[in-house]
Amino acid sequence: MKNLLVAQSGGPTAAINATVAGVIMSAFTSGKVDNVWGAVNGIKGVLEERFVDLREKITGTVDLDTLCQTPAAALGSCRFKLKDPAVDPSQYEEIIRIFRKNEIAYFIYVGGNDSMDTVDKLAAFCAKNGIDDIKVIGAPKTVDNDLVGTDHCPGFGSAAKYIATTFAELERDCNVYDTKAVTIVEVMGRNAGWLTAASALARNNGAKGPNLIYLCEPAFSLDQFVADVRKQLETNDSVVVAISEGIKDANGVYISESVQSGAVDNFGHSYIAGSARVLEDVVRNQIGCKVRSIELNLMQRCAAHVASATDIQESKMLGLTACQLALDGQSGLMAAVERISSAPYQVQFKGIPVCEVSNKEKKVPADFINAEGNDVTDKMIEYLSPLIQGENQVVYENGIPKHIALY
Amino acid sequence: MKNLLVAQSGGPTAAINATVAGVIMSAFTSGKVDNVWGAVNGIKGVLEERFVDLREKITGTVDLDTLCQTPAAALGSCRFKLKDPAVDPSQYEEIIRIFRKNEIAYFIYVGGNDSMDTVDKLAAFCAKNGIDDIKVIGAPKTVDNDLVGTDHCPGFGSAAKYIATTFAELERDCNVYDTKAVTIVEVMGRNAGWLTAASALARNNGAKGPNLIYLCEPAFSLDQFVADVRKQLETNDSVVVAISEGIKDANGVYISESVQSGAVDNFGHSYIAGSARVLEDVVRNQIGCKVRSIELNLMQRCAAHVASATDIQESKMLGLTACQLALDGQSGLMAAVERISSAPYQVQFKGIPVCEVSNKEKKVPADFINAEGNDVTDKMIEYLSPLIQGENQVVYENGIPKHIALY
Repeated sequence: MKNLLVAQSGGPTAAINATVAGVIMSAFTSGKVDNVWGAVNGIKGVLEERFVDLREKITGTVDLDTLCQTPAAALGSCRFKLKDPAVDPSQYEEIIRIFRKNEIAYFIYVGGNDSMDTVDKLAAFCAKNGIDDIKVIGAPKTVDNDLVGTDHCPGFGSAAKYIATTFAELERDCNVYDTKAVTIVEVMGRNAGWLTAASALARNNGAKGPNLIYLCEPAFSLDQFVADVRKQLETNDSVVVAISEGIKDANGVYISESVQSGAVDNFGHSYIAGSARVLEDVVRNQIGCKVRSIELNLMQRCAAHVASATDIQESKMLGLTACQLALDGQSGLMAAVERISSAPYQVQFKGIPVCEVSNKEKKVPADFINAEGNDVTDKMIEYLSPLIQGENQVVYENGIPKHIALY
Repeated sequence: MKNLLVAQSGGPTAAINATVAGVIMSAFTSGKVDNVWGAVNGIKGVLEERFVDLREKITGTVDLDTLCQTPAAALGSCRFKLKDPAVDPSQYEEIIRIFRKNEIAYFIYVGGNDSMDTVDKLAAFCAKNGIDDIKVIGAPKTVDNDLVGTDHCPGFGSAAKYIATTFAELERDCNVYDTKAVTIVEVMGRNAGWLTAASALARNNGAKGPNLIYLCEPAFSLDQFVADVRKQLETNDSVVVAISEGIKDANGVYISESVQSGAVDNFGHSYIAGSARVLEDVVRNQIGCKVRSIELNLMQRCAAHVASATDIQESKMLGLTACQLALDGQSGLMAAVERISSAPYQVQFKGIPVCEVSNKEKKVPADFINAEGNDVTDKMIEYLSPLIQGENQVVYENGIPKHIALY
């Protein structure tokens, strides 16, 4: 018997379930896999042997489609880092024992940086110990788009589409009055500004889009920010600003911490506000006009109702690729997207050594940001635009999108 | 010559432009109207004679459809209350002068409470002064759903659909880990809890939905809140709480103010956080588990990409009704929706005296809220459910929804 186990890990996205759907499609149709199981709550659930039978849960194409439009991790997730096998190999031995007991020949792990670290360590442990009856393959996922080795990450395109759509809508909303007002919108990303950059796509149909865009890569200057906003207010009633949650000053200190670390409430408890909230007060105190801050918060990563069809299809393809790599006897690889061209948009799917991916971070290159550090360049737009194309045809039931639960 | 002028006022919604589309459809097809103008920035734009020619801006059904999927007020808005005509009639005289100069026989004003006050005063001024060549009609709009005299308000159904969809997605997102966590989501509504109640519709397809729902009508007890959350945590890993921005204690003081009025930052400036942010700290300090607060902010009123088809269609019908009432020679009325039955959902459109509407507020009735004050009843669900049915078929271009600008 050769069984397959798939699991998910890290922060949820709108597309991670499509990757599981791809794994299932490949496993169900390969003729090479007996049981197809999902581990609940990632590698933690593997160690606790909490498995669900996916042949029972997914009985047809309608279930598969519903899985693809369900946000977050349908198999649950975890934040769990395996120990260094050189120090303590017991977790790895336990995983192998559980795999062998359940005749699991293929393990597909879908996740971000930490999950690829797990794939890397587990595959290396197998290789080192001559375990060649178990194949371990990773599939990428992260809204932050910060994985190296792949042109972009599943989940990012849908989050980018949500952000572009939301900025376009906010622009309409913020422009209705003929009085001066500043709206500061905080987008996810502590170390990489990709998601914040997606706000620029709100300009795709000729609208003005955000007046100013600050990613977290360049050093952020409060004085420059105030000067930039003042300048925009000279010619605009409404000024919309996109900022990364992780904007930092020249010393690498988060703006939210540098401005606000002494804030306390009635009970003496300290308040840590987001960077948009902090900048809201800066504008209020230094410029004095109407100002509002908005956090796109969890909505940007789970808004599956406005998912990018390109993202969902590619996520599925990466699941198919990951499963195929395992069935072909490969191990220690991550399925990845390689861009052939942007116009026309063309990609291919492949496996790359996961050791080249784990514990690295892909930041926004300098030439994707303008010289003033307050907008993105055409290179960024060329990179981002294909990723939000197409609308996933979401099925609604009783007025809300239909979701599927796997456990 | 008989010309028609339409204008919008108050806070933006996803449906207010559909009402303008309805007015335009009726005016263009009536054979009774020469020029069809829109005033920019509401009654303020009327006084400043800032008109756009809608026959130029809307040249076909594609434009009309695009207008219906454009959020916020395409003609701009204002927050402008006319003076009491008994004290100072000059603004009214000026409006009439401008109307006569431009041969405007019909004035349709789309908005909420304040806008209906304007319609009421202007129509009364005309009636009192024997001005019968100018007809003034209101059309309702408000995400808050707090207008009396109409079963519900355009814009509310789309905001409710966004809220139900978002809570369903957040529930998936918040449930991926097997650790205890509380998520507090703040929904618009300072005096009426309708929008917060819509979070319950996230349960429409069998999901758990928010564990607790606090509207702003009943007095909010911090102790009860903490006890409720503790109890939910006994049986759930993830506890999602919906609260109105306007929750108040038994003395009518906003919770955000009562808990937090002493908070200051490094510079001694005071922080006023939202009610969810305040409760986040209460949970952190008194319960100690992982906790996060989310504000749905402007997104809930401008997310036209997930608009309710029922809402958009009804909003259009109210525009048609308002225009027809004016063309029929009526004045001082507001177009309204009357519900005939909930199952099957059936409504009719009519005109009601605007004096019965202005300066009143429709709160959530006591029997729509459960005895514990932490959820809604079946009566609320029966009322809300029909309003989010159907998906407006939004046209996308370059990956984002297509919008139209009228000025």
